[in-house]
Amino acid sequence: MALRYLTSAAAQQLDRDLMSVGGFSIDQLMELAGLSCAEAVYHTVPPTSSPRVLIACGPGNQGGDGLVAARHLQHFGYSPQVWYPKRNAAPLFEVGAVQSDQRLVTQLQNLGIEFVDNDAFDTKLETTDAVLDAIFGFSFRGEPREPFKSALEAIVSVQKRRSLPVLSVDIPSSWGVDSGNGESALSQSFMPDVLISLTAPKLGSRAFRGKHYLGGRFVDGPTAAKYDLNLPKYPGTSQIVDITGVEPSN
Amino acid sequence: MALRYLTSAAAQQLDRDLMSVGGFSIDQLMELAGLSCAEAVYHTVPPTSSPRVLIACGPGNQGGDGLVAARHLQHFGYSPQVWYPKRNAAPLFEVGAVQSDQRLVTQLQNLGIEFVDNDAFDTKLETTDAVLDAIFGFSFRGEPREPFKSALEAIVSVQKRRSLPVLSVDIPSSWGVDSGNGESALSQSFMPDVLISLTAPKLGSRAFRGKHYLGGRFVDGPTAAKYDLNLPKYPGTSQIVDITGVEPSN
Repeated sequence: MALRYLTSAAAQQLDRDLMSVGGFSIDQLMELAGLSCAEAVYHTVPPTSSPRVLIACGPGNQGGDGLVAARHLQHFGYSPQVWYPKRNAAPLFEVGAVQSDQRLVTQLQNLGIEFVDNDAFDTKLETTDAVLDAIFGFSFRGEPREPFKSALEAIVSVQKRRSLPVLSVDIPSSWGVDSGNGESALSQSFMPDVLISLTAPKLGSRAFRGKHYLGGRFVDGPTAAKYDLNLPKYPGTSQIVDITGVEPSN
Repeated sequence: MALRYLTSAAAQQLDRDLMSVGGFSIDQLMELAGLSCAEAVYHTVPPTSSPRVLIACGPGNQGGDGLVAARHLQHFGYSPQVWYPKRNAAPLFEVGAVQSDQRLVTQLQNLGIEFVDNDAFDTKLETTDAVLDAIFGFSFRGEPREPFKSALEAIVSVQKRRSLPVLSVDIPSSWGVDSGNGESALSQSFMPDVLISLTAPKLGSRAFRGKHYLGGRFVDGPTAAKYDLNLPKYPGTSQIVDITGVEPSN
């Protein structure tokens, strides 16, 4: 089998399709995306002795996936720590987006999940057992801005010194969604251990060589056909499927 | 261990708490509730040769749980058939409710899931491999109205003739949420094989003697403490936990 890898433009159009003709709300998609990410963490770092997972959340919807993942990880027996320095700046006319962000934070606060201060990321990074990179997603363009650039550089630095499982959502943050990891020094040095592609892999992730999961078990037949996704079969009731080593069809 | 069983009034208040101080949207809760139900079906009837599951959806939010379960079951490899004779009649001021209902139907239509005509329930019942009863939930009072009363009587009739796994959500439909199955002739004769209690079991289900799952892995500590839920530990990444034989604490 072979899987279709999507451009950034196609991924954004597919997302719009899911929320228009697909009938999905952002809350539903984010819930299942975050659950997929949490399951990938579970398969990477078993939840013995409540391992710490530092979840780096970006300013867009991918940050929301990270917040949902944090909630599920707490229920799975982990000790998530959430770094969320730039709250969702979506304009009010994006129905549900801002409300959703505030609600997700409330859910985590009610679980007693620790929010890491903006400047405490490096300190928490020293002692965490895993990192979930939910900083930049399939709409990312250009160069990473602060404080995310420094956070990614800090992850690279710790990866050089000790074993630290790093999982990225959709595209390793700083990589070009279409172009991969060739353009900036940061993208050349940042290599997560695990990638969780949501709905379908992105073109830029063809350069990724670690463990690769696909999540987002909600795509209907017409959408899969429109984008020629050729989706694999998911096992059992799992929200993720291992696609490590599966070749791109394009 | 022992589990707190909730009155209808407490269950309704807990639901309101989840959507106010808990920060949850109805879409999130319904997504995880429906996923719990689909996992319970998976553990009851394995998805070999695409078994048919007839999903009876009531007019309230529990019908929505059934619609979400239908979507996940299709992705799990089942052939769900949805009987949804009374579309959600929630007034417009219940934010999200009506919209949510329409979106859930669209999602199923895009998956090619069959909607069963109002008067075709009995026919489909003859050939289905399992029934998911998502008709009445924790707000149910009084006597079942048509067409739901006849549908439940038809299920009882088929159960007498052949093996037919029946799973109920939260409370077997027609049972009193507080009083159980002693009051009406229908409630005395309707006994599902599996019960999926969401968030916490309801008082009336103390009379239930089959396989009992708890779902709704999203309750935070303060809410569990307020209602003295004494929740069990869920296994792995599962959205349900087997509580068969666990005694009520009240």
